[in-house]
Order: sequence, then C-alpha cells, then structure tokens
Amino acid sequence: MSLTRTSMREIDTSAALDLSRRLFQALEACATDGRGITRMPWGPGEAAAHALLRDAGEAAGLEASVDAAGNLYLTLPGRDRTAPRWMSGSHVDTVPDGGNFDGAAGAVAALAAAVALKEAGHVPRCDVTAMVIRAEEVSSWFTGHTGGHLGSRAALGLLWPDELTTAHHIALDKPVGEVIDDAGFDARALRDGPPHLSAANVAGFLEIHIEQGPVLIDRELPIGIVTGIRGTVRLREARCVGAYTHSGAVPHELRQDAVLATVALAHRLDEAWSEARATGEDLVVTMGKIHTDRAVESLSKVPGECAFTLDIRSQSAATLSRMKALVESAAETIGAERRVRFELGRIAVGKPAPMDETLRAMMREVSADLAIPTDDVACGAGHDSADFHHAGIPAAMIFVRNTGGSHNPSEHMEMSDYAEALRVLTETLRRLTA
Amino acid sequence: MSLTRTSMREIDTSAALDLSRRLFQALEACATDGRGITRMPWGPGEAAAHALLRDAGEAAGLEASVDAAGNLYLTLPGRDRTAPRWMSGSHVDTVPDGGNFDGAAGAVAALAAAVALKEAGHVPRCDVTAMVIRAEEVSSWFTGHTGGHLGSRAALGLLWPDELTTAHHIALDKPVGEVIDDAGFDARALRDGPPHLSAANVAGFLEIHIEQGPVLIDRELPIGIVTGIRGTVRLREARCVGAYTHSGAVPHELRQDAVLATVALAHRLDEAWSEARATGEDLVVTMGKIHTDRAVESLSKVPGECAFTLDIRSQSAATLSRMKALVESAAETIGAERRVRFELGRIAVGKPAPMDETLRAMMREVSADLAIPTDDVACGAGHDSADFHHAGIPAAMIFVRNTGGSHNPSEHMEMSDYAEALRVLTETLRRLTA
Repeated sequence: MSLTRTSMREIDTSAALDLSRRLFQALEACATDGRGITRMPWGPGEAAAHALLRDAGEAAGLEASVDAAGNLYLTLPGRDRTAPRWMSGSHVDTVPDGGNFDGAAGAVAALAAAVALKEAGHVPRCDVTAMVIRAEEVSSWFTGHTGGHLGSRAALGLLWPDELTTAHHIALDKPVGEVIDDAGFDARALRDGPPHLSAANVAGFLEIHIEQGPVLIDRELPIGIVTGIRGTVRLREARCVGAYTHSGAVPHELRQDAVLATVALAHRLDEAWSEARATGEDLVVTMGKIHTDRAVESLSKVPGECAFTLDIRSQSAATLSRMKALVESAAETIGAERRVRFELGRIAVGKPAPMDETLRAMMREVSADLAIPTDDVACGAGHDSADFHHAGIPAAMIFVRNTGGSHNPSEHMEMSDYAEALRVLTETLRRLTA
Repeated sequence: MSLTRTSMREIDTSAALDLSRRLFQALEACATDGRGITRMPWGPGEAAAHALLRDAGEAAGLEASVDAAGNLYLTLPGRDRTAPRWMSGSHVDTVPDGGNFDGAAGAVAALAAAVALKEAGHVPRCDVTAMVIRAEEVSSWFTGHTGGHLGSRAALGLLWPDELTTAHHIALDKPVGEVIDDAGFDARALRDGPPHLSAANVAGFLEIHIEQGPVLIDRELPIGIVTGIRGTVRLREARCVGAYTHSGAVPHELRQDAVLATVALAHRLDEAWSEARATGEDLVVTMGKIHTDRAVESLSKVPGECAFTLDIRSQSAATLSRMKALVESAAETIGAERRVRFELGRIAVGKPAPMDETLRAMMREVSADLAIPTDDVACGAGHDSADFHHAGIPAAMIFVRNTGGSHNPSEHMEMSDYAEALRVLTETLRRLTA
C-alpha cells in the first residue's frame, strides 16, 4: 500500500484520452495501404506520423525538438531545466502491413500524459519529455550489418562504428546514413557528435506498448508490467548448400539434400525448445523464412540449396549463448552426416534487458492505488526500452492487452485498456517529478 | 550361355556411333542457354531436336511419321508390315537447365540402332521403329491435374479424360490441349481417336537412358539392366496454414507456426525413410520445394503459411500406399498438435512398373555374348517405358553410367559407355526381329 495513496488526487486523463483517440484515428487515416498500416522508417508514413504528433504537442504548448536521426521530442518544461529529464515514448514506424498501435500507442500515450500533466497544472521538478522514435522495426526493413532499433540507438549513441554504412534500407536501397541525410537529418552529426541522450541527461524511460503475445488475454488483465525484454540470437541470411540431383534415382546415403538437412537442424532446435520448456527455461525459436531456389528447384530434384532465417529469443543470456552454440554445433554435425554445408552467415546476438526494479515497484504501487488490475509479464519482443537499459538508463514498460496478434493488420487495442495504461503512466510520471 | 553365341556375328555399330556423336553435338548446339540445356515440351528446343532426328532418319532411308501429339516415328520396314512392331526410343525434352542426354541418349540410340540394322542389310520380320517422344519432363513444366509423361501417354491412349484441359503448361500459360494444337498437332484426335500405339500393334519397347543415380559408378559398370521403375506419390501444391504472429512474444503452446509444423511432417517422413532402409524396403523421399510467403514473411514473424512439394518413390506399390497414408495421418496429427491446417492438395499416385522378365533375360544374354559387363539396377526415376508397361506392352531399359548427376547441366555420359548400350540394343533388336 502506497504512502501517498490516501492523500493522492488522481490527475484527470479524460481529455488526454480524447486527444489519444483523435490521434490514433488520424494516424490510421494517413498510413493505411488497404491491407494494413505501413509506416516505413524514414518513409512517408513515418514522416506523416511525426508531423501529426509534433503539431498536436505544439498545439498543447509542449516544446518540440528533433535530433540528428529525426527522433522527435515534445517537452513539458520542468522547474530545473538542467536536471536529468524523465522520458516516455515509443516508435511510430511499423512492419509492412502492420497495425496502428505497435508502437504508436506508446508515442501517443507519452504525448497525452505530458499534456495531461500540463493541463492539470503540474510543474515537474525536471523536464518531462515525450519521445517519438524512428525506425524500431529494423528487421522488416533493413538488411546488412545492424543492431536494430536504429532510431533509439542513434539517439543514445549506441550505433556500431560502421552501422550507418552497413545497415541497408531494402526498399530505398541505400545505407541508413544516406537515408537519414535524404530525409533531412544529419548522419555526420550522429557519427561525429556526442549522443543526444545519455544517463547524464535522462533520469529514466517509460514505454507503453501493446503486448505482442496473448498472455494478458489469458489472464484477463487490461495491462501488465514488464519484467524484462528477451535478448535475441538472429541469423538473417543462413543457407544450406547440398547438390541438385534427380529426386528418384539417388539413394539416401549418396544424397546432399539441403531441405532435409535444414529440416533436421530446425527439428533439433525445436527439440531443444521442448527441453527448455520442460525445465521452465525462457525460450522461443522461429524460422520465419525458408526458401528453395525458384530458379532451379523442381518437384523432381533433390534440392541443392535452402535459405532460411532464425530468430531465437530468451530473457536469459546463458540460454541465448547455449542456443547459439547449439545452432553452430548442430549445423556442423548435420552437415557432416548429410554431406551438405551450412553457411550460417552472421549470427547477431542482442543481450536481454531486465526492466528497472524500482520503476516496476512504483508502477505496481500506482496500479494498486488506482485500483487497476495488473501483473508481471515477460516481454518476448525487442523494444526501444532495451536500448535505454543498455545505455545505463533505468527503463520500464507497461503492456496493453492486444486481441489481434502482432505485426499484422488485425492487432487491436481496446481504448478502455489503453486508458488504464495512460492513467498509470501519467500518475507514475507525476510522482517521479513531484 | 546363349545358344546363338558361338554362331553370332555382331552387327557393326561404328558408323551408328559416329552418327550418334554428330547428333549429340547438333542437339547441344541448338538448345544451350548458357547455363544448361533447355528443351521445353512443345517449345522451340524440343521442336529443333525433332527436326534434327527426323532429317537424320530420313537421310538414312527410314520412314518418318508423326502422331497427333507430335511424337516422331522413324521406321525400318519389316518383312510383314502388319505384324506388331518392335520399338525403341525416349524423349528429347529436358528439365529447365538440364543436360543433353536425359532422354536424348535413348532417342538417338533408337535411331542409330535402326540405321545400323538397315546398313547391315538386316530386314526385320516386323517393323523396327525409333520413337522420339514429346514431353516426358512434365513435373518441371506443367501444373494442374496430370499423370505426367504426356507424350508417351498420349500415344498409348493413357491420358485421363480431362487431362488435355487440366494439365497446364506453366511457361506457355495454356492447357496442354491448346499447346498441342498451337504446335501444329491435333488435340481433338487425341481425345476422340483410337490410341496410336497399343499392345495390338507394338510387340515391345526398349529404352536406353542415362542412369540418374550413381549406382553404376559405384559398381564400375558401363551399363545396367533395369529391374523396375519406381512408382510415385506426389504432392505438387501442398501447404501448411497457421497464423502470423510476433516471433518473440507468443509462447510455444499458443503458436500456429506453419514452418515448424512442415518441419515436423518432413522429419516424420525422413524417419519413415530411415525405418524403410533398415528393413531393406525400397524408398526415396524428396521435398524439392519449400517456401514461406515472400509478401508477408519476416525474420520476426511466426510464419503463418508454408508451401511445399513431396515426391515419394518406391518399386513397391504397398510401400507407396503406406507412405501416402503416413503423409495423410501425420498431417492430421501434427496439424492438431500444432494448431495448424495442412492443405495437401491432390496426392497423385503413379504405379511402379516392373520391367519385362523375358526382355531382361535376353539383354543379359546379349551383354554376356558381347562380353559387356552389366548388372541389374533399380530405377528411381519415371520413364516413358513405364507407360508402355502400363499399356500392357513388354518394356525394358538399359541404363548408361552418368558421372554428373541428373536434371542439371553437369550430367555426363562417356561415348564409350553409350557405345556398349548401343551394341546391346542393336543386337537385341536383331534377335527379336530375326
């Protein structure tokens, strides 16, 4: 039970909820492609979303600014402008044919919370900033050498030395540095300048995001408080190389079948996943793409090549490390057994990001004070909050129940669930900056 | 030991071998596409091959005729023109980017043998006819409802009632009936007329073909005598349908992963294959094509759809029947376990075709008489000979050693090995028509 509970008077978020509703409708209207919502990083859909939120923030009297990557900041000035600020936000880009709320819900909520605090006459002890982030959905839009989450990592100075050159925007067919310059921002400043955000000038980061799994539905909860963000082991351009031969005439022991070898690898990983579940170990394994070569494949040819991706996630760094070793050793063993060669390509490892204990405790307390039912949930997807954690900035997330799956046009958030998340975010920011 | 051995005087095939060599060079020259040999059924490459062989046959004094499907017949007239004829031949179409010898070796050898018999002054008791067959490589060029081997099956009256409409030529984007008419032949006659070939007018069919496996290489034999042709269970347009969701956020028990379900099915069939090998049962299993949907797939999406093909072959009808049932039951079980739906599409079953015992015995005897080392070999691929068997006509095949695999540009036949096959074919035809 909170010490402040009996004395608290909750800030009214009803006008901020109306603002949110209008913004979600406007965001949808300017980015639908008939099938779903598409806001490409540094593309027209993302730019329109930034313009909408900037206009809404400025209309409400917030200060607007933009960093060298194009991330947008809408700030409610604090009493001490030099004190490390409290931030909230999320990205507004989407996967191709995605939905309207991943991650616009968090960008809109951050703006709405700042507006609610301002309207209530709350003058925070430090700045409170809503951040509208670029380019979080990197795996759908980029190829080449990249650590993902290009917008938040650019703001936090976490880009790898050559990443502005090696991360390649598939649709625009350009390295991300050129894409940023073409969009009117400043890749050189990102490369040469100090990070825009750091533990020295940011006190902490809170992010509202739709849940991308069905856990809150199962538990009949409107919102959840995230325990940690899973890390990843990712293979974007793996393939198995065997030899094309006649499908009927070559006996088993002389085949070099790239598909059945890839099947054996995937089956081994699926088994390892079952073993992990049996011991309660956190793990998910996905082979999102698999392709034989359309130029030479045939019903009646033993396939000589098979390309595939792997996306392995866990909250445990040890599990990730073990799974990476398993991919490598199984590829070696199966390759030798089946007379094929696996070319795994780069194996990118993203570290898990546990959420800040103090912030989690405060959000649990706020939820209890506001009589909003909630619970701890694990987070299987990557989020900008992970980058704040990796930059040494305390971060926490609130998930909103989502009945339509994720990364597809059917993702869905009830406004009544969103309203609860907005209440918790606004009250948490008030307490943090009282 | 043959009764005729001591008294036989072998027909000289050296001029026929030279003719073969020139024809192989000319066939290659008119069908190379830079990567491999492409002679599309009823396309320009196949037409050029037919024209070449017709010219060569007519130049050597053979009678040329063509049936309603465009199959070419080059005949050495016999003493009794009404007696059932002995035939030899093979197809000249290829897979895309295939090699020069599958099946042109058999068409050229049939022509060369007839020419050798003629040049030697052999007047057969019945007609001896070389058949140059259309459209054997159906699985590479056609989609829709088809029993394959469209050229030989058309000649033998084995096409299914609607097959001229339902077998669809992918590259020409037309049903095969229209393709045949456009090429100057007569689909209506195929539909309404009597079969051009039958057990009433054909005494038997002999086919030379490159081996499409490595068995003769392993045994260091130039040629082999085929025991039987494997039958097939084929799924051309199977798919697994699950649901697209976020790859990190959905726990195992709530996923509908179409790729891991397809992996489970393929793994089950691979296991069944291992079990069959352990008991010496004849079987091969191939998943030649597998594809997620490029329009919606992503590294970070659980795949909601996976398309694949299956090509299962055995010399045993019982094994084929058991494997077909296994595909169906495993799809059902795995679908239920993994919350996905397999849409297997049509499961086409092609019966095995044992080769004629009497002809096999005669070819073994001829080989021994000519001191050519040979052995029995199983045939894993489909061949036109199977259709003659299914039409009630005795059929037999001679395989020629092939060091370059099959259905690819590297397939290779040594002319010294081909020469041995041509000697056996010529002598067998001589004895059969003495």
